[in-house]
Amino acid sequence: MSLLTVGSVAFDALETPFGKTDKIIGGAATYITLSASYFTKDNNLVAVVGDDFPQSMIDTLVSHGVNVDGLEIRKGEKTFFWSGKYHDDMNTRDTVEVQLNVMEHFDPIIPDQYQDCQYLMLGNTAPAIQHMVVKRMKNRPKLIVLDTMNLWIEIANADLKALLRDVDVLVLNDEEARQLTGDYALVRAAATIKAMGPKTVIIKKGEHGALLFHEDRIFAAPALPLEEVFDPTGAGDTFAGGFIGHLAKTDDISFDNMKRAVIYGSAMASFCVEKFGAERILNLSKEEIQNRVNEFVKLSAFSVEM
Amino acid sequence: MSLLTVGSVAFDALETPFGKTDKIIGGAATYITLSASYFTKDNNLVAVVGDDFPQSMIDTLVSHGVNVDGLEIRKGEKTFFWSGKYHDDMNTRDTVEVQLNVMEHFDPIIPDQYQDCQYLMLGNTAPAIQHMVVKRMKNRPKLIVLDTMNLWIEIANADLKALLRDVDVLVLNDEEARQLTGDYALVRAAATIKAMGPKTVIIKKGEHGALLFHEDRIFAAPALPLEEVFDPTGAGDTFAGGFIGHLAKTDDISFDNMKRAVIYGSAMASFCVEKFGAERILNLSKEEIQNRVNEFVKLSAFSVEM
Repeated sequence: MSLLTVGSVAFDALETPFGKTDKIIGGAATYITLSASYFTKDNNLVAVVGDDFPQSMIDTLVSHGVNVDGLEIRKGEKTFFWSGKYHDDMNTRDTVEVQLNVMEHFDPIIPDQYQDCQYLMLGNTAPAIQHMVVKRMKNRPKLIVLDTMNLWIEIANADLKALLRDVDVLVLNDEEARQLTGDYALVRAAATIKAMGPKTVIIKKGEHGALLFHEDRIFAAPALPLEEVFDPTGAGDTFAGGFIGHLAKTDDISFDNMKRAVIYGSAMASFCVEKFGAERILNLSKEEIQNRVNEFVKLSAFSVEM
Repeated sequence: MSLLTVGSVAFDALETPFGKTDKIIGGAATYITLSASYFTKDNNLVAVVGDDFPQSMIDTLVSHGVNVDGLEIRKGEKTFFWSGKYHDDMNTRDTVEVQLNVMEHFDPIIPDQYQDCQYLMLGNTAPAIQHMVVKRMKNRPKLIVLDTMNLWIEIANADLKALLRDVDVLVLNDEEARQLTGDYALVRAAATIKAMGPKTVIIKKGEHGALLFHEDRIFAAPALPLEEVFDPTGAGDTFAGGFIGHLAKTDDISFDNMKRAVIYGSAMASFCVEKFGAERILNLSKEEIQNRVNEFVKLSAFSVEM
């Protein structure tokens, strides 16, 4: 089925203990659509960039099957820019610089040909803009997945809570879940979030995997124990792209299939952190992905005598 | 097969955000033998207490099938006492008071009838004492499992490293693994520990489950997502008791069976935290344990189309 992703397409400059980059291509929607491209060919993007954004990168998205009809290029304006520096533990980072540029007045226009999309991924951006996207869809998608971040929980809490009433799945990390609910125990935090609207909550725990809460059931997905995390940028978006990409491909939103989607998302994220930015997810083979998924199977399989 | 546990039998006084206790029964070997009692009936204890230790608690151990021939009662001396207070997040705690008492001169005597024990659990105590136990076994057990803590890594590092050369399995938590090896990444930390001696390393991650590293293979066990951790005291020892108890019962130290043992240990630990001290693991039914294990199966089961 068709997937629509709305979010940022941006420039990032990154510094990790392993090195630093100049401006490279980043943005939530970039990672999401690239990751989803390994699962679905009906992969539609709504985003905005300035005219400083290189055609070559748009070509890369197109070569991955991403439909860029909804990618607005604003003349005379500059692309969103973020630069960040990771601490030695790779779990915390400082934002060095943010230039909102075109994102300051992002007015997401949904092309007519996207209106029938059945799977909607709201990549991380201001909740008011994400909500505008939901309202601009003439037909409600079968599944709306929302990503957000600590910033919005803090400065746009009311907007976020209004949006939560209209989405099916919220993806966030453990600290964000605690921040949003004021509850340290993730089981209780997930229950509180479900009461806010989404039937399904996915709490990402980085190196500790992810928890999927769906109605009254829970699935604990492991993370691949890695010797080295080279650059965590985009791992969460890559997870989301694999998750919704698998659901869109299979058009099955049962709990069992969502569990598989979490594993596919986790596998995609485990590639993402191996190199700077999106580099590692630009050229993956189906076989590499399947082998990685098999590692998750081996990692968590056990049998008990009943 | 027969199991021998050596470690502390003690008094604890605990304070958590949910309440506080007077002196209750604690100690690594208490939790280990109680937990193991649900798996093996050949369950032998070496420990030391003062004559202030209540006969009723010894009777409780005996009623769980624990052989207390090796429990030395020192006349005119007092039992080891620890008191601690947990912070609101339940992940950190302060030691309020420690009275070593009889543990200051613990000289573990292995009764002759214990000499053929095939499974040896070295509960947390000074590495020099743990090493003495290994040396006093006339026949090397089939499997020696070691638990330790941050204190010994800090103040008895050389003793601990000498001991590591003589054990098969080390059980420790993530912070201890990082402290022992100086490596943040747990995969590398486990590899470093294996180079120190143990073929198998289990890294406990609390609410994030446990990682089992066995030769070149890894198993990631989930933890049950709990609404409430009432009191974490003894959870690590209870895990160790379930782990080695299952191995002793089945007499199978293959990777597949160690995975099962980690799940049984995790299930036992998930009971332990539900009440103060050892209260919850005093009266468990086989059915309760099996149901809990089934929750772990449901929690982590998924299938992917290959």
